[in-house]
This record gives sequence, structure tokens and C-alpha cells, in this order.
Amino acid sequence: MKLDKLVGERFKEKPADCVVDSHAFMVRGGYVKYVANGIFSSFTPLKRVTKKIEQIMREEMDLIDGQEVQFPVVMPASIWQESGRYKSIGKEMARFNDRNNSPLVLGMTHEEAAVHLVREYGQTYAKYPFMIYQIQTKFRDEARPRAGLIRVREFTMKDAYSFHTSQADLEQYYDKAHKAYERIYARVGLPEVISVKSDSGMMGGSISHEFMLLTAIGEDSIAICNDCGYRANVEAAECVLDAPANAKSEKLTKVHTPNGHTIEEVCAFLKCETAASCKAVVYQRNADDSYVVLFIRGDLEVNETKLTNYLGCDIHPAVITEESGIVAGFIGPVGLNAKATVLYDRSLQNMNNLVCGANENDYHYTGLDMARDVKGAEYNDFAKIVDGGICPVCGKHSITVSRGIEVGNIFQLGTKYTKSMGMTYLDNDGNSQYPIMGCYGIGVGRLAAAIAEAHHDGYGPIWPLSVAPWQVHLCAVRADDPEIKAYADKLYESLQSSGIEVIYDDRNVSAGVMFSDADLLGVPYRVIVSPRNMKSGVVEFTSRDKTMKETLELNGAADEVIKTVRAELNKFKM
Amino acid sequence: MKLDKLVGERFKEKPADCVVDSHAFMVRGGYVKYVANGIFSSFTPLKRVTKKIEQIMREEMDLIDGQEVQFPVVMPASIWQESGRYKSIGKEMARFNDRNNSPLVLGMTHEEAAVHLVREYGQTYAKYPFMIYQIQTKFRDEARPRAGLIRVREFTMKDAYSFHTSQADLEQYYDKAHKAYERIYARVGLPEVISVKSDSGMMGGSISHEFMLLTAIGEDSIAICNDCGYRANVEAAECVLDAPANAKSEKLTKVHTPNGHTIEEVCAFLKCETAASCKAVVYQRNADDSYVVLFIRGDLEVNETKLTNYLGCDIHPAVITEESGIVAGFIGPVGLNAKATVLYDRSLQNMNNLVCGANENDYHYTGLDMARDVKGAEYNDFAKIVDGGICPVCGKHSITVSRGIEVGNIFQLGTKYTKSMGMTYLDNDGNSQYPIMGCYGIGVGRLAAAIAEAHHDGYGPIWPLSVAPWQVHLCAVRADDPEIKAYADKLYESLQSSGIEVIYDDRNVSAGVMFSDADLLGVPYRVIVSPRNMKSGVVEFTSRDKTMKETLELNGAADEVIKTVRAELNKFKM
Repeated sequence: MKLDKLVGERFKEKPADCVVDSHAFMVRGGYVKYVANGIFSSFTPLKRVTKKIEQIMREEMDLIDGQEVQFPVVMPASIWQESGRYKSIGKEMARFNDRNNSPLVLGMTHEEAAVHLVREYGQTYAKYPFMIYQIQTKFRDEARPRAGLIRVREFTMKDAYSFHTSQADLEQYYDKAHKAYERIYARVGLPEVISVKSDSGMMGGSISHEFMLLTAIGEDSIAICNDCGYRANVEAAECVLDAPANAKSEKLTKVHTPNGHTIEEVCAFLKCETAASCKAVVYQRNADDSYVVLFIRGDLEVNETKLTNYLGCDIHPAVITEESGIVAGFIGPVGLNAKATVLYDRSLQNMNNLVCGANENDYHYTGLDMARDVKGAEYNDFAKIVDGGICPVCGKHSITVSRGIEVGNIFQLGTKYTKSMGMTYLDNDGNSQYPIMGCYGIGVGRLAAAIAEAHHDGYGPIWPLSVAPWQVHLCAVRADDPEIKAYADKLYESLQSSGIEVIYDDRNVSAGVMFSDADLLGVPYRVIVSPRNMKSGVVEFTSRDKTMKETLELNGAADEVIKTVRAELNKFKM
Repeated sequence: MKLDKLVGERFKEKPADCVVDSHAFMVRGGYVKYVANGIFSSFTPLKRVTKKIEQIMREEMDLIDGQEVQFPVVMPASIWQESGRYKSIGKEMARFNDRNNSPLVLGMTHEEAAVHLVREYGQTYAKYPFMIYQIQTKFRDEARPRAGLIRVREFTMKDAYSFHTSQADLEQYYDKAHKAYERIYARVGLPEVISVKSDSGMMGGSISHEFMLLTAIGEDSIAICNDCGYRANVEAAECVLDAPANAKSEKLTKVHTPNGHTIEEVCAFLKCETAASCKAVVYQRNADDSYVVLFIRGDLEVNETKLTNYLGCDIHPAVITEESGIVAGFIGPVGLNAKATVLYDRSLQNMNNLVCGANENDYHYTGLDMARDVKGAEYNDFAKIVDGGICPVCGKHSITVSRGIEVGNIFQLGTKYTKSMGMTYLDNDGNSQYPIMGCYGIGVGRLAAAIAEAHHDGYGPIWPLSVAPWQVHLCAVRADDPEIKAYADKLYESLQSSGIEVIYDDRNVSAGVMFSDADLLGVPYRVIVSPRNMKSGVVEFTSRDKTMKETLELNGAADEVIKTVRAELNKFKM
């Protein structure tokens, strides 16, 4: 298509509200328009990118025997009441009543709809396994949309649901889906995406993986073992510790610690390491504001996902009142007299000679011996794994923590939805059983943004050929020169008629404007027809990533370009 | 794909709630599953049909220089407040508040979003004309969803919006869009769809057309002139009358008409035709319940669309109270003493010797002469055109009224949205102007249902090849016979590897079950491999519409099938 007809504007200035590069380029390049917080319209260049991504997903889902279906965006509350998630999911789910006052919700995920669709079909074991998927709009009322298309409220998602008659069959299919996901990332030009163990969150189920693009602007933290290859979202990573207790336990002694409120202040005052302290972190349950006091080694942080999973409910940092019996800043496990659930992190197990609060204003204890002084405590893993920490698989101090964008996830759901929604089948022996499910999701827009985030320079995105809005950007510099225009027009036609997707810039603008627009559109190949080149009987043929710069004879330039594009496209085929 | 793996169930019994054939076949053939009133999930066969329809739309929109974009499903109320439709549209629009209490709506059409997307882009005349379109989910909270996919609440729509700098340019483009629509209907196998003049309704604007599939189950009435070809939705058709007045006016005379409440009863009692009466039809405005009394010739019906357009507001049939001053059953234009807007249909203009109510219980007048007795009345067209009526174009009594399903519409919107939303451009002379818009919509699911409605027999749909879920239905009757199975497997592979879309039934079921399933899936070509045919060294090759039944030599059958499918596919190319 002709660039001068392309709807959307490109400009130089980085918008003030864009904190990540992909967002800035999407706005500056005429890819998206902000409609409301976390809600965007897409212009044609982005639509062309997402359609290609969707087609790659479709092909890969079909290859693992997926059947494309479509669930509704708007669903009756009833099917979410069946699964129990109408209650358990909070404000992220948009709810409204229709004209007859029937409660409806907007789909933020479609496990319920999937079970609803197939529960009559899947009544005998012979129908299994099967997988259905859709590519459809979802709405999730995120509290904090951010970073352009990285975290939005309305998005298009490829979501797939598989149904099985045994855990072994699910696991086998889960591996196939994992491989299909690897192929998808490779084909869209992100072979560097890695999978990590993840927390299953509101989805339920046990084993799950997230696919992560490692980048400093990611909102997830990923623990990676540089030795054995273990990888997990920090939320899901077990925290292993090997600090030994002291050989000899000192006496529990109350000391005056005026003006010391944080564990750092107290330890500095008492001249000990924070690792030699027992810190209290206090939360309240969202449902009833009841208190949860968690004791953990002073140098560690609480992994709130683990805590939430342990408690089975949502929590928030506590607001400590006088009536609670909790003495803020001086909380300790000895003599704590508060209405609260009290928990202990494994980092404290068997530890001694610790500093801790004395549950009395301006007083701490030294010489705390957990085994001696806190009888009957149960220890669980609530701590966040740290950079330099111990790998829970190989046991070495080889963990690094990196930031990443989650660009996909897969879950072994078990029978959570089939059981709650009463989907059963008769097995080979005539017994009624609940099918076992897996689910597999990728957000289309976020993946597009992740590609731009991973592949860009200071001037714009560098789209991989497989998902680029066009394959060739043809610039006719000085198209007011009839010779230039005639040659460029002919080249445009030759390329188009060979099935090459060309964006053709024959505007009467400077080469500078032309090239900066081309940089923003990020088309992988560029052909420049200009008076200077023309004089030498050539056109310039370059790649957006600057690794290639050739001159092609005027005669035969089209064939060369076609050959190069086709060869490169083949590299993305799996 | 293998039929025994196809998710979804097919069955014989017509579901009780299916009143139209396309709905029954969609349910019986495993195309859709009911989720809630007017909300369905689609199984793979329907998804395959709609994807093909969407691709045809996309190609035709691109051919008229459309650029595919995507608007959000969820929009902030603010852009609908700008256009004024947040107020003017009633309960059909779903509204809810997000977690921050900001009002949001679900898109039921996207004029506002289109203007929002391009109002910065379209600031100078040189950018015009342009057209943007999307294929996206919409939600319209219909009061009465019906007939399966014909009238639903959630649907996928192709909606396009064009922007122009002159009415002439809009009209030229509107014609192009009209032709593109004709090509779309022809390519999906519905060349019989006709366009009719329509009412613009809530869209605003002046000229508009609907595309109609004529069928007895349609919910629209269409007036067609069999002489000159005039076609209009009855809602929009002018009602022309040529009944002459009597030569001599009689005296206005009050007569006692006990027990006669309807105009038919009164006319029967007074022994005159209803056409010789002046009937009153009473409405109330929705906003304030104020009364509207409309007088019309007794044998005609009110076209409420015309009345609504005239009043500029919504109305409902009146509940007449005593305080209103309206004497129900005896309302007439002489001596009417009521707080009401009084309107006169053109059918009464210059008429005389009419019967009408006397605004007094149990009394009517005879001998009403409108010109003599109702001074200063203004006459407008409020009547419904009738079968056998007069064509407003050629003037002949040549109108027939038929039922139709609306399968698309195009509107000349004018500046309604650009003006209200403050979108302007600088023209060639540097003056600020409002762009002129057109919009163009087709519902994807309804079109699929219309195709099934137009093309089916007693056993299922007969999909046109261009949109069929698969191209060839391969039946291996007695696939337990190794020779049958081996041949059919090979044929399946040959066809698939040539790019033919095959659904392959190698289940261990009777030929009867196989064929009735095949009829429900409606695949246009069928190949039957069976022991009997095998013995004769042939396979059977038939068409779903029963117009073709051939035998093909085992050797070379694949080539014959491929040739036939490709030749037929070519017929759908424009």
C-alpha cells in the first residue's frame, strides 16, 4: 500500500506517559491510539502484525490437534457461579446486569465456557483427549494497566483448553503444548523466550509454566540457576537456606531499644547482622481484616504469593490498631498476645542467638533460640528467593534473579472445573469420572509489544519478517523526478504481483522524513530508489537492523528482493 | 480432519425452541451451543464457516481501499457522551462501571470509536478520502433475541467507516461500497440478496440501504415494485394513495353508535367501508408520556418508524386515562379537547364523507369533510405501504410486500458524528470543515445463518463451496474392512496434500448414520468408499445438493475430485 494513504500519524517526540520503548514506538509509529486506561484502538500496522501472530498461533494449535471454536465475550454469571469463581475473583472481573436484570460478566478467561461447551460432548472416554481453542477479546479490569500493550484491560488472547482421562495423558499433552509454544515464539522472532515454573494463582491446578522474555522492563522476577538450568518465577521458587545455627545458645535477654522500629535500626543499634534477627511482618485478610503475623529471618523478604496460597485467601499489609494487642515495631514470638494467625518461615527453623521484638514498647530480646523459646512452632516456606541464593534443585549458590515479561502460560488444571461444573464421562469400566484439564494462553497484543521490546533500536521497532506489517519498505526519494517515479512504480508492481507485501513511500518529502517514518514502521527490508543511486544504475537494498546494505542493479532488482525475502521467510517455518 | 475427533454432537430430533430451519440445523449439526439468551458459543464447523466469510469480507474491503483496524469492545462512556448517543440509545447498550467507578459501555456499533481514532489524523483535506474497517465482537442487549443466529445479543460484525470532504465524494464511495457488498453476497453464495432503501434509525444520516435475503422467516417487510424495480423496507417506503374524494360532501351528522369501539365495528354498524372512515391511533412519548393522536384512513396502518422520525423521539401505544380528555373508542378530529399532539396522515387529505369519532361516548360523526371540518390540518406521510399499493416511483399499483432477513446495511451518515465530536479538517482554502462520513456493516453470524436458511433441504444445510466448513466429506463405509480403510486413508492423504479441506469419516457406524451426519455438516462434495463400489472398482462422488452423482475409477479419483473442487471454487472468485 501507499504510505501517503496509511491512516495514522508518525512523529518524533516521545510521549511523556510512555515509560517503555515498545509503548513509545507504538504511539509514535501510528500503531495504537489510547482510548481509556488500559484500552487501545489499533491502527492498520499493528493489526497486520497481530493478524500474522494469530495465524502462527492457529497453525501451531492445529498441529497439536486443536480445534478452533469461539466462546462469548459476555457470559451469564451462572456458569461462573457453578465454578465458584464468581465469588472468588474480585474486581478484575467486569460485571453488569442486562435489561432483564440478569447478571452478566465479561470473559477474562474461559475455563467455565470451555467446560460448558463440551460437557455434553465429552460423556464417554472414547471422545478423549481433545483440545479446543479460540482467539478472542478478553477484558480484565486491572488495577494498574501499564507500559502500553504490556499490561492492558482489553486484549486479544489465544486460549486453549485440553481434556484428558488421566494425569499421564495430560502431562504428555502438556509437553506437546510446551513444544508448540516454543515453536510459536521462535516463529514470531522471539526464540529467546524461556519457560519458567510458575504459581497457578486464580486458575487452580498444580503444575504450571510461564513463558518469559527476559528484559529489564519486565514486571516479573525470575530465578534462574546458572548451573543446572532450574528456572522459576520468584513467586513460585522455593527458598532454600543453609545458614547454620550458632554452636552455643545464649540466654534470652530483654534489652532497651529506644527509637529502633525497623529491624535494620534495631540490628544496627545492637551491632548484629539482620540475618541474626527474627523479623515480624503483619498482614490482614481481605475478607475480615483478621491479622496474620509472619516471623521470618531479618534479611529475607516475604513471598506474598506463597503466603496467600498457604492461607487460601487474599491479604493486604496490616494497619495495626491498639486493640489488636500487637505492639508495632516490637513484635516477637515470645509473649506475643494478639488475636492473630502466627506463622514461621523455614529460615528460622533451629536458629538461635536471634534478636526479636519483646512485644513491649522500646524493648527487644537478644539470644532467642527458636527451638528452646518458641515451642511447637511449625515452619513453612514463605521467603522470597534472592539473587545469589541456593538453587532448590542442584543446591548450589547459583541463583540469579532477572526481570521478565510473561508472554504466555500453560497450566495443568486437574479437575477443578470439571468437578465444580459437574462434567463427567464414563470410563472403560462404566464408572463415572471427572475429566482432567489443561489450559494454555498467550496474549496477542502483549506478544507484539514484547517483540518490539526485544527488537528495536533508538529509532523504532525492528520487526521479524514473519510478523512485520509489511515485508519491504520501498522509498522513492525525489518521486517528483519522473524517472525515479516510473522506476519505483514498476518495482512496486513487480514486488506486489509476486506476493511481496510492500509499503510504498512516494511522498514529496525529504529523505530524512522518509527514513525516520520507515524506521518507525520497522519493516525488515528497505529498497531506496534515489537520483544518486539511479545515476549509478542501482537501487539500495538494506535491512532495518542495519546488518545488510547492498546495491542492486536496476535490472533484476525485483528478483533479488523477492529471493531474499522468500529465503528469510523460510527461516521462520518450522 | 477425522470426523470421530470433531468436538460437538449431531442428532436427529429438532429442538423444541428452534423455530427456523437454520437455527435447528446449527444446533443439530454441532455448530453452536446456547450459552444465554442471544449468546452462543461456536463449535469448529461454524468457526470454519465464519472465518471464510470474514476473509471474503476482508478481501472486498481491501479492494475498495479499506484499512483494517481494531476498535475496543469496551469503551469509555465519554466518547458516547460526545456524540450524544450515551443518552439517546436506550437499554440496547450495555453499561457498567469499572473498579474506579468510571462508566464504560460495550460497543454495539463503532462510529464514535472511528471518529476518535482518526480525528487527529484527518486534519487536512489531503488525507481524504479514507476508509477504515474492523471485524470485531459487538454486544447489543436486544429485547427479543430470536431464530438462533439471526437475532442475537453478542455477534461478530464487519463494520467500515469512510470519511470524505464532499457529499459527491461520499456518494461515489457509497456506490463502490454497494458494489463490494454485492460481490460479498455473491462470493458467499447468496447472489439473490437485494438492496432496499431503508430507514436510518439511530445511526442518523439520510440515505441508507439494507441488503435483504427474501425469505418467509425474515422479520423485515420489504416493498418491491414489480414494474420499475423500486425496493424499500416498508419502514422507509413512502405510502402513495390515489383514492378520490366523493363528488359531493354530505352534512356532518352525529349518530348514535352504541357498543362500537373499533373502527371495523363502527363501519359495519354504519354499513360503510373502513376506507371511508377517519381512524384515530393514540401513542405516548416514552420520555414524558405525553399523548400523540394520529388520524389516518380507517383501512391503513401506522408506520411507527415514520411517526418516530417525525416526532424525533421514541413512542409507545397509549394507555388512555380519564384525565387525558381523550374518549377512547370515539376519538375524532372535530371537537377533540385533549392535551395531545394531533397529526394527520396524507390518506385523509381532501377526503370527505368519512365516519369518525365524536369525542363523546357512544357517538360518531358521518359526513366528515376534512377540508371543511378540520381547518388548518397539516398532512404528512405516516401510513404503511401495503401489498397491491402504489409504487412511489412509477406510480403503478405494482407493490408486493415480502419478508426478508437484513444481512447488511450501508449509511450515508453526513456530519452527525464529526460535528458532535468536533472532528474538523482544513480545506484547500484553509477553512475548517467537518468531514462527511459513511458506514457499512455486515453481521458475520447472521450471514452464516442466512446462507443456511437460503440453502438447505430437509436434512441439513447445503453450504456453498466458498464458505463450507470443509470442501469434501469422505465416507469410508465399513472402514473395518482393511481394503476400504487403506484406500480411503490414501485418498484422504492425497486430497489433503493437494490443499483440499477434507472431513474424513472412518467411524465404525452404519452408512445411514454416516450420511445423516454428512447432511448436517452440509459439505458440498461427498466421496463414498464402500465395499459395493470397491467391487466395481469405483468410488461414488456426489454433491450435497443432489445435482451430481458420479462414479470415479479408483485410480485417479483423487485427481477428479481435486479438479472438480478447484473448478467450482473458481466460480466464486470475482
